[in-house]
Parts: sequence; structure tokens; C-alpha cells
Amino acid sequence: MLFHVRMNVNLPPEMPAAEATALKTKEKEIAQGLQSSGKWRHLWRIAGQYANISIFDVESVDELHTAISTLPLFPYMQIEVMPLCRHPSSVRGDDS
Amino acid sequence: MLFHVRMNVNLPPEMPAAEATALKTKEKEIAQGLQSSGKWRHLWRIAGQYANISIFDVESVDELHTAISTLPLFPYMQIEVMPLCRHPSSVRGDDS
Amino acid sequence: MLFHVRMNVNLPPEMPAAEATALKTKEKEIAQGLQSSGKWRHLWRIAGQYANISIFDVESVDELHTAISTLPLFPYMQIEVMPLCRHPSSVRGDDS
Amino acid sequence: MLFHVRMNVNLPPEMPAAEATALKTKEKEIAQGLQSSGKWRHLWRIAGQYANISIFDVESVDELHTAISTLPLFPYMQIEVMPLCRHPSSVRGDDS
Amino acid sequence: MLFHVRMNVNLPPEMPAAEATALKTKEKEIAQGLQSSGKWRHLWRIAGQYANISIFDVESVDELHTAISTLPLFPYMQIEVMPLCRHPSSVRGDDS
Amino acid sequence: MLFHVRMNVNLPPEMPAAEATALKTKEKEIAQGLQSSGKWRHLWRIAGQYANISIFDVESVDELHTAISTLPLFPYMQIEVMPLCRHPSSVRGDDS
Amino acid sequence: MLFHVRMNVNLPPEMPAAEATALKTKEKEIAQGLQSSGKWRHLWRIAGQYANISIFDVESVDELHTAISTLPLFPYMQIEVMPLCRHPSSVRGDDS
Amino acid sequence: MLFHVRMNVNLPPEMPAAEATALKTKEKEIAQGLQSSGKWRHLWRIAGQYANISIFDVESVDELHTAISTLPLFPYMQIEVMPLCRHPSSVRGDDS
Amino acid sequence: MLFHVRMNVNLPPEMPAAEATALKTKEKEIAQGLQSSGKWRHLWRIAGQYANISIFDVESVDELHTAISTLPLFPYMQIEVMPLCRHPSSVRGDDS
Amino acid sequence: MLFHVRMNVNLPPEMPAAEATALKTKEKEIAQGLQSSGKWRHLWRIAGQYANISIFDVESVDELHTAISTLPLFPYMQIEVMPLCRHPSSVRGDDS
Repeated sequence: MLFHVRMNVNLPPEMPAAEATALKTKEKEIAQGLQSSGKWRHLWRIAGQYANISIFDVESVDELHTAISTLPLFPYMQIEVMPLCRHPSSVRGDDS
Repeated sequence: MLFHVRMNVNLPPEMPAAEATALKTKEKEIAQGLQSSGKWRHLWRIAGQYANISIFDVESVDELHTAISTLPLFPYMQIEVMPLCRHPSSVRGDDS
Repeated sequence: MLFHVRMNVNLPPEMPAAEATALKTKEKEIAQGLQSSGKWRHLWRIAGQYANISIFDVESVDELHTAISTLPLFPYMQIEVMPLCRHPSSVRGDDS
Repeated sequence: MLFHVRMNVNLPPEMPAAEATALKTKEKEIAQGLQSSGKWRHLWRIAGQYANISIFDVESVDELHTAISTLPLFPYMQIEVMPLCRHPSSVRGDDS
Repeated sequence: MLFHVRMNVNLPPEMPAAEATALKTKEKEIAQGLQSSGKWRHLWRIAGQYANISIFDVESVDELHTAISTLPLFPYMQIEVMPLCRHPSSVRGDDS
Repeated sequence: MLFHVRMNVNLPPEMPAAEATALKTKEKEIAQGLQSSGKWRHLWRIAGQYANISIFDVESVDELHTAISTLPLFPYMQIEVMPLCRHPSSVRGDDS
Repeated sequence: MLFHVRMNVNLPPEMPAAEATALKTKEKEIAQGLQSSGKWRHLWRIAGQYANISIFDVESVDELHTAISTLPLFPYMQIEVMPLCRHPSSVRGDDS
Repeated sequence: MLFHVRMNVNLPPEMPAAEATALKTKEKEIAQGLQSSGKWRHLWRIAGQYANISIFDVESVDELHTAISTLPLFPYMQIEVMPLCRHPSSVRGDDS
Repeated sequence: MLFHVRMNVNLPPEMPAAEATALKTKEKEIAQGLQSSGKWRHLWRIAGQYANISIFDVESVDELHTAISTLPLFPYMQIEVMPLCRHPSSVRGDDS
Repeated sequence: MLFHVRMNVNLPPEMPAAEATALKTKEKEIAQGLQSSGKWRHLWRIAGQYANISIFDVESVDELHTAISTLPLFPYMQIEVMPLCRHPSSVRGDDS
């Protein structure tokens, strides 16, 4: 099942650079693992913002929440989730 | 270049059924043509709404506007566009 | 899987009474069928509004969208969907 | 009487882990006591957010406010309350 | 129990004057009956708007919804309800 | 003249308990004095929030502003004021 | 007493020109009468909009509401009122 | 030319009293100078808020921005500007 | 002086095509005249919307309002105006 | 390709003056370089705010994001991007 997720990151500017770097490195590693496993199907940067649009493909809502809420940047993100389903006009094999 | 487009359709309930069907049939035909050509890369229904999330892949903003503004349902849609770019953590070949 | 759905109904006051009654009667019949089948798990009226809060229990997002979008009042409703998951502090057997 | 309550939790990321854990442990204990007593009838996590949707079943508005405002996380939560009543189309015994 | 209710009235300007007058006359009669019975405890006009702030004193949420949703102007009003409770600093006998 | 005032209190959670208690004690004393004098005619708690709905009865807007802006919690409150007037359907002696 | 009033006018484009002209002519006559009497102290057009910012100087909120709600364009306007008082830094004789 | 300016002041409550007083004293002095010169034509307090409504009368937008952005409280204010012009129904000599 | 103007056009879909075409043709003619005279300095389409971003260069706010409010599409547009001034970091000759 | 960018700057008032000055000096230098190269085509101050409206002319969305996200003030800005395209009524050579 597909879910559309928007994540806006709000790292406090006063966070020490080393701490921020460590968080982002760990975040990237986990995000790439989820992508490799097929759970995090798409990941795009919104131009001009420290924010992304993601498409998750999961077995259940619980799996989705676990994936998102264990991200290292989760405490610093504002997140909105919208469930998606196949559009009757879609001709693409990978839209569901 | 990728653009994230949200389209909310507001067909007036009093529109004659034949007129609505004709509009939707033509819309579907054009949408599928744009998908086949690769311009309309993804198309998902937002669950519970007469709305969709789309990803367009176009050469220019002008091409994007032409594609959207010539859709038969354009006069009945509220549309929001966000430019996307490749995310530094993406490992997917088809995210840019 | 559980989804939290808010439905606000906007029937135009000028709709003929017979038409409105027919729509509502059919809506009620379908809503009660979905409740009996266990798909529409809870249904509450928001006090002071022609609106409801519902909890759906479905196998997939597609099933959710089909259930909502085929309701007779769908063209007259503004709808918002939020996916829910089990809360770690819940002790209730019927919260997931 | 039933009330729909949405709670968004905003714990400052800089709160010491021990303090946060103590708050959450106490919150869980109280939340489970209110569930056992039947006052806090449902408790769900909103997917992707540190937030919940709850249904309270109380004798009065004062009882509702006392239950909510004495939660350990109350100073860190943004809360919205909507009174609910039985929906005329509900066939469920536990919707009122 | 007390509930704070804001009602914004949106009568279409094209409604025939006789129809509007009949609706308002009936509304006034019912509103005054509810005031006399003590259910509609306060009723104020918001300056500059066709809107009111009301305080209802009812036995239950169901009673509140029935009172509001059977008003003749209900189909033309946007309504928001907030439950109120006694404020710990209130010294007034009629604030609960 | 009557004014509808909504006050949302935002005390920073990190404020020392003694300081918060002192502020609230002084606030309560002043609020009760204004109630006794008849200037602060009603004071209700909004259920589930650290917020209140108040009705002030003052001789002038200047008197209203002085009363509100000298409250000890004023620097920590978000406040909205709406002027009220007698509703033509009110039958209550104390609604103006 | 001074009140800041913003009026946004929404005349339906399909209103017959003669009807619109009659409404505006009558509105202008009344507005100028209220200005001459000193009740409508200032009247400015918001650039680019069919809207105005006005300052009323009235004896009471009831007088303000009567002045506004009897304007011929009242059924077509969205109106917001804010009470004003003398600013401690004002040196102008006509700011209160 | 006239501009309508709304200024909301957000001084952090933890600012030392002496610093706040110094800022406000300087602000008042400059505001009164601009009033005396005729540039700051009106200045009113919004009742119940640490905010004001001002009317500026300047030769250019640059002059307006310079006046506002050099105010001592500028870093602590949220500001909205709307250009005004003479209203065709105004009969007042000082409304343009 | 420069003003940033956003215009959103809302032509009712049921307007006869000939009437819409006539309005747009006249609008285009006037817009091009204002561009040629230098008053309407820039005009861009917002991608995906029947809306534009414009930069006007006028002698006064009155001139701006006259230019906008006499456009044939004015009754069908939602318009927002923001005054602009030269940015201290601009190196462009045509930014003021 | 053209993009409309609004940048609102929120420098914390408690930032040391030297740090703020260094940031702004570097920001100005980079902004002027981008203007000289033609990438940052227009830059205007929004009157009364620490904010700007900019028009970027770039080859791709990635180039736009790189330009914006490497600005020294990026961590302190709230930014909104809208893609623009040539307006069919534009007669200006430099509007595309």
C-alpha cells in the first residue's frame, strides 16, 4: 500500500555541527536501507526547502508509523501522511 | 525536470451526467497519452477525495503549464505545483 | 487497518426535499451495510454540525476509497482521511 | 457522553532523556487507568505523528477537563475537543 | 453543562424576502422558547456580522445537537461548538 | 458594553514553579476583583485547554484594554476581542 | 469610541447593472451621511480590491452594529471589527 | 500616499526589564517624531493586544520601509502593509 | 514605485464562450497597453494556475488602483498587492 | 526558466551582532554574484518586512535548489517557490 508523506525538517540553527552531521548521516543510512528494501519507494527534495516528498510502500499502517517514527530526525520533523490508491486513469505498472 | 502537482476536482453536482462523462473520458484519454509519452510520470488517487497527486517530468515550466492547462477538467480543478529535485539520500534510479 | 475519516456534508439548501431524502435514505442503507460487515467500525455525529467522525477498518487503501467514493452523498462531502495505528499505551482489545 | 480529543505532543528535543522517560511512563500509567475505568474509551496513534486521537466517555465536561488537564504531558500538548453524539445511521451498540 | 456556540448565518441574498422573513420569525420563536426553558442561556450578536455567540446549558451533547440542528436557519449556518467548564478563578454563581 | 474575549495562556514549561504559582495567584486575585466589580461578567474554562472565554462589561474600549493589558499573565497570553451587542431575539435581562 | 472595520464587498457579477448601481448609490448616500455626522470618521479604499478600511467613532457597540448592518451592501459584505483605543505613544489630537 | 500598517509586538518575556524599557522609550521617541513630521499620520492600539494599527503618509515606498525598518522594535514585530487610496465615497478632507 | 500584484482569475465555467472570449480579448488589449506605457512592468503566468504575478511601476497608489480596478476581468479576480522597494543587495539597474 | 521565490528571514534577535553582520555580508556577496551571472534576475524588498521577492532564471530545478540552499541565511529563512512561465499577454522581451 502506498502512502504520500511530506517531511519538513526544522533543525535548530544552534545545534552543534557535529551533532547535526551525526544525525543526518544516520538518517541517510536508514533512509537508504528502507529504499533498498522497497519500503521507501520514492524520495524527492522540495526545491528551496529543507523538506521532502516521499512515497512509502508498506504492508500496514503500523509498519509505516514504525518506519517514520524511528528516523533519527523524527523529533525535528513536521510530518503529514496521505493514503494513496491506484488512479483509474493510470497506465503505469508501478503506480500501485 | 520533475514537478509535484496536486489536483482537486470540483465538478458541480448539477452538471448533466452526459457532460461530466464526456469530460472525464476525454481527460482520461489525454492523461494516458501524457503518461505514455513519459511526461506524466506518476498518477495516484488521494484516498477519500476526488483529487490526485501527480509527478510530471518535463523539459520546461512552459511545457508543464501547457500540459496542465489544456486538460478538459482544468476549469474545474484547484491545482498546486511544487518543483522537485533529486534528494541527496535517494538511491533510486528513477527519482530524477 | 484503521482509518479516521471526517465527512462534512454540504447539501445545497435548494435541493428538492424528495431528492435529498432519497439520497439520505440510500446513504443510510449503505452505511449500515458497511457497519454490519465490520468495515465501518464507528460512526459519530459531530455536535452542532452536519458532519461525522468515522473509523473504518479495511484491508487496503483501495478498499477504503471504494467504500467512501461510492457513497451517495460523496459528491456533496468534504472528506479528510488520517491513517491510525495501535497506540503503545492502549489497553483496549478493539483499538487495533 | 462522548468527546473526540486530538492531542499533539511537542516535547522539546533538548529535554533530558530521563525526564522525558519519566513523563511518558507516568502518562502511560494514568492513560491506562482511565482506559480501565472506561473514561478513556479509545486511544489511537495518528500515523507519522507524535499525536493521538482519543474518545472519552465522561459524565460531564468538568470530568473531561480534569482528566485531560492533569495528564503529565498536558503542558506539552496542543489539544482540540469536539463533542460527539449518536449518529442516526449508526447500528453499533458501542457508538453512544 | 455549558457549551459555547458560534453561529454564522449565510442566507443567500437572492432568497425571496417572504421566505427569509418566515425563516427568521420561526427561528426567533424557537430561540426564545429555548431561552425561556433555560437551555439557551445567553445569546449575543457579534457586532458587524450576521452571527451570534451563544451559551447553551443542556443535560447532554445529544440534547445540544437536537436543539441546534432543528433550528430553521440550521441549513444556512456555519456552526462551531466548544465545551466549557467552570473556571477555577470564577466567583460568579451563574458561571456553571 | 459587552466584549467577548478569548485568552489562550502559554506559560513556558521551563518557568520555575514558584514563579508560575506567584503569577497565577496574582492573576486570580485581580480576575476576582474585576468580577466582583462587575467589569468581568463571565469567565469560563475551555475544556481541554489552558484557555478561557470571558465576557467583559465596560464603559469604554480604553477601560477594556487597561483591564486586560495589566493582567499578570498578559505577556504570556494570545488574546482575541470581539465586540458584542444585544441580539434582537434575546429575551434575557442580562444579555446586554 | 473607535472601531476599525474592514469591509470586503462581493457583488455577484451576474447582478443586473441597474440593481448594482442603485445599491451603490444608496450606499454612498448613507456612507456620506454617517461621515458628515462624524460617526464614520475615516474611509479608505484598499488598493487593488473592492474593499475598504474604515474607522467608526460611536457611542456604543449597538450604535456601531446598527450603522453597519443597515448599509445597503451589508448582505454582500464580509466584515471584521476590531476595537481600538488610544495608543500611549500617540501625539495626535484626533487619535481618540 | 497612505499605507495601512499593522504591527504586532512580540517581546520575549525573559528580556531584562531595563532592556525592554530602553527599547520602548526609544521607540516612543521615534514614533512621536514621525508623527510630528506628518509621516506617521495615525496610531491606535488594538484593544487587548500588544499591537497597533497605523496610517503612514509618505512620498514613496522606500520612505515607508526606511521608517518602519529602523524602528527599535522592528526585530520583534510582525508587520503587514496594505496600500490605501482615496475612497470614492469619502467626503473627508484628510482621507487622502 | 513598484508593486507586486498577484491576480487569481475565477471565471465561472458556465459563462458563455463568446462572453469569456470578449472579456479576455479586451483584458489583453488593456494589459498590453499598460505594458507598453511602462506601468505594468512584468507579467508572468503562475504554472498550473489561471493566475499571474505582475510588477506595476506607478506614480501613486491611486494610479495603481485605477489600473487594476478598470481591468475587464477585475470582477472575477482575487487580488493581493504588496509594495516593493529597492533591496540593498540588488545590483540590477531595473530593480527600482 | 523562471521561478518566483519569496524569502522571509528570521534571524534570532539574540544572535551576536558580529555573527549577524558576517552572515549578511556573505549573503550579499553571494546574492550579487548570482545576480551578475544572470541566475538571480530580480531582487526586491517587501516593504515593512525582513523579506524579499526574487525571480530566478535557471537551467533546472536542481540549479535553483543549489543556489538557494547554499545561501548563508538559508537556515534562517522560510522560503516558497512558484514556477513561472511566459504569459500569453506579455509584450515584454525580458518576461521569459
